[in-house]
Amino acid sequence: MKNILVIGAGLSASSMLRYFCQNAEKEEWNIKVGDQNADLAKSKVANCSRAEGFALNALDPKERGPLIEWADIVISMLPARFHVEVAVDCIRYKTNLITPSYISKEMKALQEEAEKAGVLIMNEIGVDPGIDHMSAKKVLDDIEAMGGSMHIFESFTGGLIAPESDNNPWNYKFTWNPRNVVLAGQGSAAKFIQEGKYKYIPYNKLFRRTEIINIEGYGDFEGYANRDSLKYRAKYGLEDIPTIYRGTFRRKGFSKAWDVFVQLGATDDSYVLEGSKDMTKRDFINSFLRYNEHDSVELKLRHYLQIDHDDIIFDKLVWLGVFDEVKMDFTEDVTPAKFLQAILEEKWQLEPEDKDMIVMWHKFVYKLNGEFHEINSHMVAIGEDQTYTAMSNTVGLPAAICTKMILNGTIKLTGVHLPIIKEIYDPILAELEEYGIVFQEKEISEPILYAEV
Amino acid sequence: MKNILVIGAGLSASSMLRYFCQNAEKEEWNIKVGDQNADLAKSKVANCSRAEGFALNALDPKERGPLIEWADIVISMLPARFHVEVAVDCIRYKTNLITPSYISKEMKALQEEAEKAGVLIMNEIGVDPGIDHMSAKKVLDDIEAMGGSMHIFESFTGGLIAPESDNNPWNYKFTWNPRNVVLAGQGSAAKFIQEGKYKYIPYNKLFRRTEIINIEGYGDFEGYANRDSLKYRAKYGLEDIPTIYRGTFRRKGFSKAWDVFVQLGATDDSYVLEGSKDMTKRDFINSFLRYNEHDSVELKLRHYLQIDHDDIIFDKLVWLGVFDEVKMDFTEDVTPAKFLQAILEEKWQLEPEDKDMIVMWHKFVYKLNGEFHEINSHMVAIGEDQTYTAMSNTVGLPAAICTKMILNGTIKLTGVHLPIIKEIYDPILAELEEYGIVFQEKEISEPILYAEV
Repeated sequence: MKNILVIGAGLSASSMLRYFCQNAEKEEWNIKVGDQNADLAKSKVANCSRAEGFALNALDPKERGPLIEWADIVISMLPARFHVEVAVDCIRYKTNLITPSYISKEMKALQEEAEKAGVLIMNEIGVDPGIDHMSAKKVLDDIEAMGGSMHIFESFTGGLIAPESDNNPWNYKFTWNPRNVVLAGQGSAAKFIQEGKYKYIPYNKLFRRTEIINIEGYGDFEGYANRDSLKYRAKYGLEDIPTIYRGTFRRKGFSKAWDVFVQLGATDDSYVLEGSKDMTKRDFINSFLRYNEHDSVELKLRHYLQIDHDDIIFDKLVWLGVFDEVKMDFTEDVTPAKFLQAILEEKWQLEPEDKDMIVMWHKFVYKLNGEFHEINSHMVAIGEDQTYTAMSNTVGLPAAICTKMILNGTIKLTGVHLPIIKEIYDPILAELEEYGIVFQEKEISEPILYAEV
Repeated sequence: MKNILVIGAGLSASSMLRYFCQNAEKEEWNIKVGDQNADLAKSKVANCSRAEGFALNALDPKERGPLIEWADIVISMLPARFHVEVAVDCIRYKTNLITPSYISKEMKALQEEAEKAGVLIMNEIGVDPGIDHMSAKKVLDDIEAMGGSMHIFESFTGGLIAPESDNNPWNYKFTWNPRNVVLAGQGSAAKFIQEGKYKYIPYNKLFRRTEIINIEGYGDFEGYANRDSLKYRAKYGLEDIPTIYRGTFRRKGFSKAWDVFVQLGATDDSYVLEGSKDMTKRDFINSFLRYNEHDSVELKLRHYLQIDHDDIIFDKLVWLGVFDEVKMDFTEDVTPAKFLQAILEEKWQLEPEDKDMIVMWHKFVYKLNGEFHEINSHMVAIGEDQTYTAMSNTVGLPAAICTKMILNGTIKLTGVHLPIIKEIYDPILAELEEYGIVFQEKEISEPILYAEV
């Protein structure tokens, strides 16, 4: 008998909890699920006799302590900043811990204590981070084993709408946190390295320096650069690689239209728009345009950003309703980003039958015996419905499978880890294939030695 | 006999201290000047028998307390954040205080205490803020007295190089803090109101939405919007004005070229450029451009930002040396903004004989008896040398004259104030004329009712 404690029963915990319930009898697991919202926790394990859902304030050490002591393993689905205090308790009670979040400095610092306690703390075992690490490291390790030396590593992931539900001109709907989509790419410049040269893309150019990738059977995608590709050099043991570039996928044509909002300043979250409470959507757009007695908002926008009247970008803006004389429901003035988000949420919301899609793509160029070779690898996952989404499956299943492997002794590691070791990623990737999360690898006959990014 | 204490003897205190020394005998003043740097304080009052310079740590209440008690008036030239603690001491010792800085909330909150102590705390009495308030309020009060109602108020100020020293293609040199010039306009969007509509300009468009102003005898200038024009509505009693716009002057053509650095991301101060310690100027520019085996940095830049090969912008960049294969002297990696500043400081530095220039321009459009009228008002001040610069004269003389008027009883106010009252601005503007700081006002026969900004 093994005991599993899941902290947090939100959207991304659904597929993991289903996996636990389906395997509970066979594996002899007892499962407890605590969430601020008791009903949510209960509903996620409703038909499972070996699982119990309940209300939990995980930030209260007195509430969580006895549960962590009871458990053989904890899966923390809390916001990333709370993982470390849970980890400290796990070390105290000699309980293993899994989190899907990026490893923090503070988490790393627990390495020695975790080892001493004989506890495994596995981080970054969701989709991105998670499946990206495992699927990339698998190919990288194979190349290294062949004696190849890496020249280019590129990797893109996107959370998108499935082709069968893709019925708007943006080819995009909110399948995840809308606020993160509106603010994507803000902060410091995107940094990467290409042919040994550091490269920086500021926010105002980010959505114009995209790379277009075709994925067989799924059409064209475009990728814009993530904030920091450089840190993956150390993560993947690629300290001397000349080119490393990571990015986010959208459908081709999204970024050029999105850039209209970036150029206007409509994605800015750093100040409150005076008077925005009473603005219509049209007023909102007009507030970023020159005053002119005679010209329409549409004409001013086209003129300002040099958009032809027959450009599809313009159709996308019209479809969003940004020129409508319709007020929003704000009770106080908001930032431009919040105003824009509210406009988008009306149009990019999922319909009840809509399914999401996760797309991941890697490019590996390596040198072997003086010659360049290229391998591409991709995975496309389509959601089942709006509970067992592609996002929930790809975030939750790696963590669930890893849990099983820790409990049944397949993984015997201790300390603070990422899933970049063959003994971990091989069996997890193999089992993920049973759930339709499959990477297609192919060799490219004529390697492309650099991309225009 | 009256006692004056000046805290801070830096660049902008020179003209003020000269004024005090020149008038000390006649007005029966004793002057004390404290600065962290004793030599600097002594040198600024070297030939003045009634003045004494010395080392002072103004942040130590024990050091400054007895001096403030001794003084009848204190002029604080400290960084703005330190004024309030000096003000609290001034209230305790019943000593008047003058600062050239923007009034803070904390300073405003001293209103009642200052009045009770019978003390005057005069803020924003330099050039911008300072002379701008006084010269604008004078015309605004005249218009109000005539029964006119304000329709448009625009105001621009620039710290530039004097025409006789203007010998580079940017028509610009650093006459003031270089860091502030590199970071100008960053942070939240510029906001103003035009014909009753709120308008916002994000940083990435700020230097493309300039207004061009001709000043008779001095040629063309261009103005870009300041961060917050809206707060001047309350400041000047213009709560219902349909259009208010404040900005910063450069010479025509500067902003279009400067925008190259904005678009590249070269003015960003929010992150450290990895590897920048070892970069040449050319590497620095190249780090913001696409990788390409064949094209030169120059070609890539022109292509990226769509600059014609014969565009004068390109000559400006070449003149700055940004394409030179020359390393900088950094001992560690720096932000893009710091790298750019170092490049600029080599080329935009003042030569020993160079003189600076302050240019200020106001536009007033008002309605009187159903008709629109327009008044323009401008002032150009040229520096004497690199001690008594236009900046030092325009910052220091208003404060100095105000000091005299407080000490000789012309100004009898108490409390926390700005120089926007007729009793203050009239005599100060009149005396400033003796020092060549003169506003030319003229009526415009055909009012221009809106500008393209």
